Amino acid sequence: MFQTFDDLSDPSCGAPHAALLRAELARRGLDGFLIPRADAHQGEYVPPHDCRLQWLTGFTGSAGVAAVLGEDAAIFVDGRYTIQVREQVDMDVFPARHLINEPVTDWLGSKLKPGQKLGIDAMLHTVREVRRLKEVCEEAGAELVTLGDNPLDSVWEDRPEPPLGEVALYPVSLAGREASDKIAEIQSALKDKKADACVLTQPDSIAWLFNIRGSDVSHTPLPLSFATVPSDGKPALYIDGRKLSNSVRDALSDLTDLGEPDGFVSGLKTLGKAGARVLIDPALAGIGIADAITGAGGTLVEAQDPVLLPKAIKNATELKGAREAHIRDAVAYVNFLCWFDEEAPKGELDEIGAAEKLEEFRRETGVLKDISFDTISGAGPNGAICHYRVSRSSNLNIPLGKPFLIDSGAQYEDGTTDITRTLAVGEVSPEMKKHFTLVLKGHIAVSTAKFPEGTTGAQIDTLARIDLWKAGLDFDHGTGHGVGAYLGVHEGPQRIAKTGTVPLKPGMILSNEPGYYPAGEYGIRLENLEIVTEARDLPGGERPMLGFETITLVPMDLRLVDVSLLTQAERDWLNSYHERVRAEIGPLVGAKQRIWLEQATKAL
Amino acid sequence: MFQTFDDLSDPSCGAPHAALLRAELARRGLDGFLIPRADAHQGEYVPPHDCRLQWLTGFTGSAGVAAVLGEDAAIFVDGRYTIQVREQVDMDVFPARHLINEPVTDWLGSKLKPGQKLGIDAMLHTVREVRRLKEVCEEAGAELVTLGDNPLDSVWEDRPEPPLGEVALYPVSLAGREASDKIAEIQSALKDKKADACVLTQPDSIAWLFNIRGSDVSHTPLPLSFATVPSDGKPALYIDGRKLSNSVRDALSDLTDLGEPDGFVSGLKTLGKAGARVLIDPALAGIGIADAITGAGGTLVEAQDPVLLPKAIKNATELKGAREAHIRDAVAYVNFLCWFDEEAPKGELDEIGAAEKLEEFRRETGVLKDISFDTISGAGPNGAICHYRVSRSSNLNIPLGKPFLIDSGAQYEDGTTDITRTLAVGEVSPEMKKHFTLVLKGHIAVSTAKFPEGTTGAQIDTLARIDLWKAGLDFDHGTGHGVGAYLGVHEGPQRIAKTGTVPLKPGMILSNEPGYYPAGEYGIRLENLEIVTEARDLPGGERPMLGFETITLVPMDLRLVDVSLLTQAERDWLNSYHERVRAEIGPLVGAKQRIWLEQATKAL
Repeated sequence: MFQTFDDLSDPSCGAPHAALLRAELARRGLDGFLIPRADAHQGEYVPPHDCRLQWLTGFTGSAGVAAVLGEDAAIFVDGRYTIQVREQVDMDVFPARHLINEPVTDWLGSKLKPGQKLGIDAMLHTVREVRRLKEVCEEAGAELVTLGDNPLDSVWEDRPEPPLGEVALYPVSLAGREASDKIAEIQSALKDKKADACVLTQPDSIAWLFNIRGSDVSHTPLPLSFATVPSDGKPALYIDGRKLSNSVRDALSDLTDLGEPDGFVSGLKTLGKAGARVLIDPALAGIGIADAITGAGGTLVEAQDPVLLPKAIKNATELKGAREAHIRDAVAYVNFLCWFDEEAPKGELDEIGAAEKLEEFRRETGVLKDISFDTISGAGPNGAICHYRVSRSSNLNIPLGKPFLIDSGAQYEDGTTDITRTLAVGEVSPEMKKHFTLVLKGHIAVSTAKFPEGTTGAQIDTLARIDLWKAGLDFDHGTGHGVGAYLGVHEGPQRIAKTGTVPLKPGMILSNEPGYYPAGEYGIRLENLEIVTEARDLPGGERPMLGFETITLVPMDLRLVDVSLLTQAERDWLNSYHERVRAEIGPLVGAKQRIWLEQATKAL
Repeated sequence: MFQTFDDLSDPSCGAPHAALLRAELARRGLDGFLIPRADAHQGEYVPPHDCRLQWLTGFTGSAGVAAVLGEDAAIFVDGRYTIQVREQVDMDVFPARHLINEPVTDWLGSKLKPGQKLGIDAMLHTVREVRRLKEVCEEAGAELVTLGDNPLDSVWEDRPEPPLGEVALYPVSLAGREASDKIAEIQSALKDKKADACVLTQPDSIAWLFNIRGSDVSHTPLPLSFATVPSDGKPALYIDGRKLSNSVRDALSDLTDLGEPDGFVSGLKTLGKAGARVLIDPALAGIGIADAITGAGGTLVEAQDPVLLPKAIKNATELKGAREAHIRDAVAYVNFLCWFDEEAPKGELDEIGAAEKLEEFRRETGVLKDISFDTISGAGPNGAICHYRVSRSSNLNIPLGKPFLIDSGAQYEDGTTDITRTLAVGEVSPEMKKHFTLVLKGHIAVSTAKFPEGTTGAQIDTLARIDLWKAGLDFDHGTGHGVGAYLGVHEGPQRIAKTGTVPLKPGMILSNEPGYYPAGEYGIRLENLEIVTEARDLPGGERPMLGFETITLVPMDLRLVDVSLLTQAERDWLNSYHERVRAEIGPLVGAKQRIWLEQATKAL
């Protein structure tokens, strides 16, 4: 199993670990220290070696930060984790605060005293974060001390080793482009920005650029590493050599100089000494990177990681891979749904059982590399927790008479999938159908949207919500995120959300996942992945428009649809989507499943 | 008539006036100069005294800038004026460029030579503009010289005198709040921002704050003036004393110190000398204002004009006035439509005739103060020019078989109106009906929208366009602008547009005016004004939502509707809107008009 259901929380670690850290801070003459969840790559997944916030507090969420001063301490988490943090963390040692509404900078501002020294690990805090931290320290008359190492690491006994996941070359037959071609594109972009080099800290940017994959973190085939790319000449890739087989090393050596991670900072200093103008992304690069460059005499060019946009716009080969991965995944999913419809009504299936069985069907494809994230298997009230992770202690039986929400995905070598379905178990109420149908209407509105070049995800986001809004309802997450090509299931810069300021471009893959979550009752979410495409064949149309091609091919549960709430156009969409599912997936499943599929996709 | 139809363009002025200006620049040792359309108030309307761009080039549009160097010159206008500029300006002297796509800064960057001096009038260019201009001059090795007077004024013979429109007090019975109360609100906002004072340069901000109205510019009851408001104590209003009657002067003196406009800069210097932190809006305040403050030792606090938001959020009295003004205006408008339906089919009515008659019906109310802008009366191809102004030479007969577009508004003492209707004359084609109906669907989608607190105009804008987008069509202007309370027909900060980043708040008034413009054929636009309100009575709703209350009460032309393209909900909206128009306006018009109205509002 790629997913575990162990209870990860251990609030008892908070007091002793805080004491250990405070002693170390005292030894170093520091009055306080920040412990973010992030590692130096600012990614969604962090290897056990870098789970400092979890070691210190017990908190396992994907975002947050703790602050430790001589007497005081606190942990800051966002709205997704307000319940979880109270279960996992000792609130006497680390009282919880809201990361957005009561930011750590406000807290520091009220606690820091003149002359005090606040330490941070220079690689873990971005240039942008440090700007704000510096202001707060200055206002308080305190000093921000950026450290080249981490005091917490000195007192962390039994710290896991850094991951050494083997690196594999990602073949051009799947990547669609030679790495040398991608490097040339980035070099040309650097010249446009009058930059002599850029620093890459995001492992998925590096994986895409060099056509490599790895296994250093959960659920995402990433090798952790850093890189610099000069506007002319060979890049430098800083990666633990033990992850490289001889053949991989040889292939990479043609593209890039290879160095160990501990040579990264001195590589930056060499750039600085040469007086280079170096592009860094201030939202991603640690302040230690910026300081190494400018300290040695270099100049910073602050701009978005130049790999983000080329990586987000998939080429024809990547799109072909994504479509094939989604057909394969749909076969596994239809097997699951057919099984679920037999098992769930018996009333004995639980959240873990459903998640395990779904992974099992995906394994049966024979080519499953990983799941793309821990399956969110939410029965009844657990479904209303948007980022729920089922554990042995939270595990619920799936009740009859309520929608069951399951959000999951797979990593195949040709593509990454992410799908949410909400399933009826037993007889559901008219109100549940109304809620499901409102979410479905939002999903259809996004899927059928046409829009001119330049339209952002923020403009599209409204379409997912307007029918819920008219009913006085809403959901508290974005409508869609970017998805990688056998890379991160969450990638930027594109998103469909109020904050989605990036224009959508043909080739981008996005999720379309509106929802509705009556607290304590149940959750509803419907998620397909969509490719941004050029919309042709608009009769009477004058202007070029973009639109979406849906690549997820799994039935929506018709037992939850209130047909009277659909317009004719919406009903037509649903029927034609189901016809496509039947035509494309029907021939690939067994006889029993095909009968189930016929029934599940019948026209309304 | 408040509107004239004279041809304003005189391209022949370009060569001699450019020569006069160049000679003056040479006398002053300047190598170049910028002539913006704006005056020191950065408003939409500029008094003849300040129409420098028009004097120099002949161009009468509402936005643009000319640049004059020793040999070269150019005029920069936006997409609305690309045709007009070629008719009004001598392209040999001032070649036209696109203000947005080929900005004046790029042009200057390519033309300025090291050591040259580029002059600007310090009051006409905002702090934000000057930042960019300084960069460009530095990159070119040239010098930006900010001048306390304007070289063009020295050579402008027969320059009109500054306007001296009488100032009237705006009674609390219409304003809804005492000026002293408004001033206290602004002072409290200044304290929140730790500012000691603010500078107001927008005449409508000043008019709202002091409860005064004037008549210095066309179509907007504004007295031109400047003001400063300290966080404690009395404001200072810099206004030509000849505009004030004794009673107005007495009333204002209770609220504010009064000074002449030429004392404004020394008032700023006094603030600066006292070391004050002075709030200015960098998008509105001239660089001369910022320099006067900082040059004397003050500090700038850059923030949005603090009056904008309180002014935009109308109080109950202002909203009552707006509703009454719209009922009065609808009576005049129904009289016009009834007349139009008799006259237009004869084939002899022209654009000017329609505009004149509409103003005549509005005058018949007996309380028309002004029209709120020059009526856009667009027959056939002229309708496709979004910001068309009809003149004797452009005037077209209104043809049969094409939609006729008329966009107009009134200034009444209790409210400002703005309405666009598109009218069928003779038999129109199925395609025209399709286009009209797509625009109508967008209009209805905005009007019926519900949305949570915090939603911006950019999020709503999509709803106006999605049906057009699905047909491969779009329109190149925003969907809606803010509207003042017997003030500017265009006011910020709220707008419904891709660029509308301000959350909509209850009490704001916005236009809702999607359109479609097949070039060379005809124009379609449908515009009502809407008040943002709290949306109550959403059955099953959980969250507070906002919505719109439509205050424009004039029939949409049913002869242009293709009913088959409307959903049942859209048809219901149209029928219920027309029922409301019939019920509220029917009893207020004559017998003949009532019969016309019954027919025009019959249920579909």
